[in-house]
Amino acid sequence: MEIIINPFIEEWEQLCSRPLFENRKLENDVRSIMEAVHQGGDKVLKEYTRKFDGIEIDDLRIPEEEITGAADFLDVRLRNAIDMAYKNIETFHAAQKPSEITVTTMPGVECSMRYLPVERVGLYIPGGTAPLFSTVLMLAIPARIAGCKEIVLCTPPDPSGKIHPAILYAAHRSSVTSVFRIGGAQAIAAMARGTESIPKVDKIFGPGNQWVTMAKQLAASSGVSIDLPAGPSEVAVIADSSVPPEFIAADLLSQAEHGADSQVMLLTTNEKIIEAVIVEIERLLNKLPRRDIAEKSLKFCRMIVFREYDTLMNFVNTYAPEHLIIATTNHRELSGKVMNAGSVFLGNYTPESAGDYASGTNHTLPTNGFARAWSGVGTADFMKRISFQEITPEGLQSLGPVVEFMAQAEELEAHRQAVKVRLDYLVNKKNLSWDQSIH
Amino acid sequence: MEIIINPFIEEWEQLCSRPLFENRKLENDVRSIMEAVHQGGDKVLKEYTRKFDGIEIDDLRIPEEEITGAADFLDVRLRNAIDMAYKNIETFHAAQKPSEITVTTMPGVECSMRYLPVERVGLYIPGGTAPLFSTVLMLAIPARIAGCKEIVLCTPPDPSGKIHPAILYAAHRSSVTSVFRIGGAQAIAAMARGTESIPKVDKIFGPGNQWVTMAKQLAASSGVSIDLPAGPSEVAVIADSSVPPEFIAADLLSQAEHGADSQVMLLTTNEKIIEAVIVEIERLLNKLPRRDIAEKSLKFCRMIVFREYDTLMNFVNTYAPEHLIIATTNHRELSGKVMNAGSVFLGNYTPESAGDYASGTNHTLPTNGFARAWSGVGTADFMKRISFQEITPEGLQSLGPVVEFMAQAEELEAHRQAVKVRLDYLVNKKNLSWDQSIH
Repeated sequence: MEIIINPFIEEWEQLCSRPLFENRKLENDVRSIMEAVHQGGDKVLKEYTRKFDGIEIDDLRIPEEEITGAADFLDVRLRNAIDMAYKNIETFHAAQKPSEITVTTMPGVECSMRYLPVERVGLYIPGGTAPLFSTVLMLAIPARIAGCKEIVLCTPPDPSGKIHPAILYAAHRSSVTSVFRIGGAQAIAAMARGTESIPKVDKIFGPGNQWVTMAKQLAASSGVSIDLPAGPSEVAVIADSSVPPEFIAADLLSQAEHGADSQVMLLTTNEKIIEAVIVEIERLLNKLPRRDIAEKSLKFCRMIVFREYDTLMNFVNTYAPEHLIIATTNHRELSGKVMNAGSVFLGNYTPESAGDYASGTNHTLPTNGFARAWSGVGTADFMKRISFQEITPEGLQSLGPVVEFMAQAEELEAHRQAVKVRLDYLVNKKNLSWDQSIH
Repeated sequence: MEIIINPFIEEWEQLCSRPLFENRKLENDVRSIMEAVHQGGDKVLKEYTRKFDGIEIDDLRIPEEEITGAADFLDVRLRNAIDMAYKNIETFHAAQKPSEITVTTMPGVECSMRYLPVERVGLYIPGGTAPLFSTVLMLAIPARIAGCKEIVLCTPPDPSGKIHPAILYAAHRSSVTSVFRIGGAQAIAAMARGTESIPKVDKIFGPGNQWVTMAKQLAASSGVSIDLPAGPSEVAVIADSSVPPEFIAADLLSQAEHGADSQVMLLTTNEKIIEAVIVEIERLLNKLPRRDIAEKSLKFCRMIVFREYDTLMNFVNTYAPEHLIIATTNHRELSGKVMNAGSVFLGNYTPESAGDYASGTNHTLPTNGFARAWSGVGTADFMKRISFQEITPEGLQSLGPVVEFMAQAEELEAHRQAVKVRLDYLVNKKNLSWDQSIH
């Protein structure tokens, strides 16, 4: 832990820095896995699952009845919890669905923007100690709302070759088209180009370890769209004395327990808060099964005191945190000064974990300062915009000469001709249809 | 030119294929240019301008008075044309500006989505024989509407070290913050990390040659956001006998004249149209100063006859063209079947060049089939979405147990504690504020 009091602005860059990863070796390893999958298809996928996961699998696809029947294997309280989270996430993401815009930019010139679903999307759900069913909801619900025709989900199997029923239940509820038991860079390779059993998709979503992240990056540079560049998870908490230090300690720890590389920051104008929070962190740490991970992450925790809120908020916007908790009496005012962040949690009763699971907002968010130019995943990410225009003869008579003049200035004569031949027809009142016999 | 009649669906992949570029050497060259700029700053930028462009420049920044005074050096008709294009582009892009959404997902749980500008954006405008002032409008107008604080423009100087007044006038009209005379991969490197005179930006937009494109890709993999992956420009035209072949020929040529690698395609259900269009292409070619370029591109032109419109539209959606012209009597009906395209031009009086310059739609569009998952540039690309949530004590009492249960199932105890410590306070009606003296 590092405590910094009133840092000079020259120190900000260093204070906002994230860990750097050197990854040329990783890149080469991942590239060769992907090439092997592109060449060998399903056979290679099964070989990698044997080699990396130590599991022998016959069929990559999870049978339909296992997905539809997953609910029966779930604790009813967990099922109800998933259902409530589902409803909130659905409500917030349905409200984001954009509608068509039509504008007459000048008489006779009508421009519109339509929003259409990305037809085939691939969702990657990491494996690990616990089933990340919440991420299934966060990706599959907006995909369904957007209207994606094919929603493919890949996730690594457990040692017995199975997928946890909570993942299958969440997938079933959100109308995922097909689920495959395959993880790692090989799963990304499969979705990027397709294999005998796994369909090629247009866009790949979802978190993952550094192998998965590198595979997504390589897929992106070969033309498959991806959701976000990924980095370790982060939280910045702004606190004053209106909030019990215990709340803040729990919030900081809920980020720290994600991984040893999680970034945790406390920002305040009140130095006393820092001491109080540290005491609570020590106390709460004892309750955590993932204490070791949290302690590693806390080593790099920064706690910074600022003289005033304006400076503090400038710092926040420079850092651009993935999660930002504002637990101060003036949280409404400070929230209006947020320029760069992924998701913001306001007031004393809004812990990050609410947004991680069930408030309705998405938990797939920009890390590593990417919030300066990227957004968290939303319904719009499962859609694309297409512009349409239709010009009437009258419209072309007003607009045409402008286009001709600009094309001439850019020395693109055929561009000018495309207008000119049409205006000639209008001036000479020629008949457009030239082959009545076949029209 | 290649004429294909009723292709089998197995042939579609090959018919939809775009040229592939091998670029390992290019990648290494561009990488070393970028590293040199990151290390040497302005001095290296000037060296490269001497080396690549053969121009000696003192000051990279174009003086304010040169920008504000550019209008005086412009033909008044060109100025008026730019002004009219400006108005249409502004009207259509202002209509795209998203507004905040606020939703109560359940009682006491309020989620909202705010749209904020990307603070610092960089626009790259290529050089070449003609000044691409239209691209300045297409990028700077949405940046201004989004509210970007800093709009940096880089463009290579002409042999006398100047920038064309049409570019400066377009930049001035759209409130570009600063203009720099620098081109190529070195300009992208400068904007990606900043130099003494060129500010670092958060997102880079704009077209360019393969050096610029590679530099944008490398910048993207180091965390600077970019607009779109770029490829050669494309048009697909769907025509029936309601449109004079001359119109279609001019449309195909206005794409072909862009570059030898431009992709041009004619799709129809009427074989006779193909013969008629070819005659008109030959006739119009003679009028083109860029005839050589157009002829090279036309070598790869594909003209395909389909038995029926449903198959034709399936093919279009598989190809996912950057520009799609639908010049048929049933264009309204066909437009409803477009799933993948960048920008669509409907009817006989809507040439692509209208959208390239002045109808109001954007001309920075996804090529290379990327329209399956990417959109053309719009106002939203200059903004990011941030989600906010605020939960009341009552809200947390309903939602909290759900979050606790899900956190437990994902084995994240601190996530659960962040809810639990808060619910304990509520149950025990404890006083939150713990240090009245400093509050």
